[in-house]
Amino acid sequence: MPARFVFEQKLQQLHQDLIKMEAVVERSLDDAIKALKKQDVELAKEVIKRDDEIDRMELVLEKECLLLIVRQQPMAADLRDIAAVLKIITDLERIGDHCTDISEYTIRLANEKYVKPLVHIPEMAEEVKKMIKDTIDSCVNKDIELAKDVCARDDRIDNYFDTIVEELTTIMASNPDVVKQCTDFLFIVKYLERMGDHATNIAEWIIFTVTGEHI
Amino acid sequence: MPARFVFEQKLQQLHQDLIKMEAVVERSLDDAIKALKKQDVELAKEVIKRDDEIDRMELVLEKECLLLIVRQQPMAADLRDIAAVLKIITDLERIGDHCTDISEYTIRLANEKYVKPLVHIPEMAEEVKKMIKDTIDSCVNKDIELAKDVCARDDRIDNYFDTIVEELTTIMASNPDVVKQCTDFLFIVKYLERMGDHATNIAEWIIFTVTGEHI
Repeated sequence: MPARFVFEQKLQQLHQDLIKMEAVVERSLDDAIKALKKQDVELAKEVIKRDDEIDRMELVLEKECLLLIVRQQPMAADLRDIAAVLKIITDLERIGDHCTDISEYTIRLANEKYVKPLVHIPEMAEEVKKMIKDTIDSCVNKDIELAKDVCARDDRIDNYFDTIVEELTTIMASNPDVVKQCTDFLFIVKYLERMGDHATNIAEWIIFTVTGEHI
Repeated sequence: MPARFVFEQKLQQLHQDLIKMEAVVERSLDDAIKALKKQDVELAKEVIKRDDEIDRMELVLEKECLLLIVRQQPMAADLRDIAAVLKIITDLERIGDHCTDISEYTIRLANEKYVKPLVHIPEMAEEVKKMIKDTIDSCVNKDIELAKDVCARDDRIDNYFDTIVEELTTIMASNPDVVKQCTDFLFIVKYLERMGDHATNIAEWIIFTVTGEHI
C-alpha cells in the first residue's frame, strides 16, 4: 500500500477514536449537570467512575499519535494534524476531570435545599457542551469557520459566568446562612467556565493546524 | 556522529529549554503574588505581558519535541521522555495563564482595602512554586522520589485551599459588604490550587516516563 494511503487511513482511525472520546466526555458533562440539578448522588458517582475510562482513552490516543509520528514520519501539515490531536486529548481529559469536580460538589450538596432552582447553570453547560462537540467536528472536518465560531462563543460563556457570579454574590450578601452553599456553586460555575476555555483552546489548535497561525 | 549521541544531545537541549521555560513561569508566579500582595498594578501588568513569552516558549518546545520524534524516531523509553515534555509544557503554559488570571484580579482589586492582610495566600503560592520547580528538576534528573514527593505535597495545597475558603466564607457570612472582594479571592485561591494540580500532573507524567506506570 502506498505510504500516503496508510497514513490517511491511520489518521482517519485517530479521528474516529477522538470522536469516541468526545462522546464519552459529552455524556459525562450531561450527566454531571443532570445529577447536580436533580441532586442525584448515584449519577454523580457514575460520572466520577467514568473518569477512569476517559483517562484510559487519552492514553490510548496519545500512544496512537506518537507511534504514528514515529512510524510515518509526517512533515509540515500532517505533523501539525497529529500535534493538534495530542493537544486536544489533554483538553478533553481535563474537561472530564472537571465533570468529576462538579460531581464531587453534587455529592457534598446532596442533602441541602438549593437557594434557588438551577436555571442558568444548566443553560451554560448546554452551551459549553455544544462548543466541545463543535470543536471535535471542526477538527475532523477541518472546518475553520466552525472553529472560529467556537472561539467567538466563549464570550457567551464568560457572560454566563459573570451573571451567575453576580447573582450568587447578591444572594450571599443578603443571606449569610447560604454563603457556604453559594461558594460551592461559585466553584461549579468556575469549572464550567474552564471547560469553555478548554474548548476554545482546542478550537485555537485546530485553526493553527490548518492555517499554521496561532490566534 | 552516532545516532544515539545526537539524540542524547538533542534531549539535553530540550531539557535546558524546559528549565528556561520553568524559570519564566516561576518568575511570573512570584511577581503575580507580589503584585497581589502590594496591590502593584504595574507589576500585575508585567505578568500579563510576560504570558506571551511563555506561550512562545511552549510553541518552540513543542516544535522541538515533534521534530525530534520525526527525525530520530525514538522508541519506548526515549519516546516516553519526549511525550512527557510535550505534556509538561502544556501544564507549564496553563500555570502561566493562571498567573495572568490572578493578575487580572489584582488590577480589579487595586483600589480596595483588603479585608485582611494576605498571609496564607503567599504561603500557599510559595509551596506551589516549589512544587513546580521540583517537578522540572525531577524530570531533568529522572528523580522519581522527588516526583513522588511533589504528588504527596498536593495534599498540603488542598489543605491551604480548604483553610482559606473556610476563612473567606466566615468573613463573608459576617460582613455582607465584602462579599464581592472575598469572591475574587476565592477565585484567586482556586487558581493557585489548579497550579498545584498542574504540578502534580507533571510529576505523574514524569513517574510514567520512567516507570511506564500511570499513578
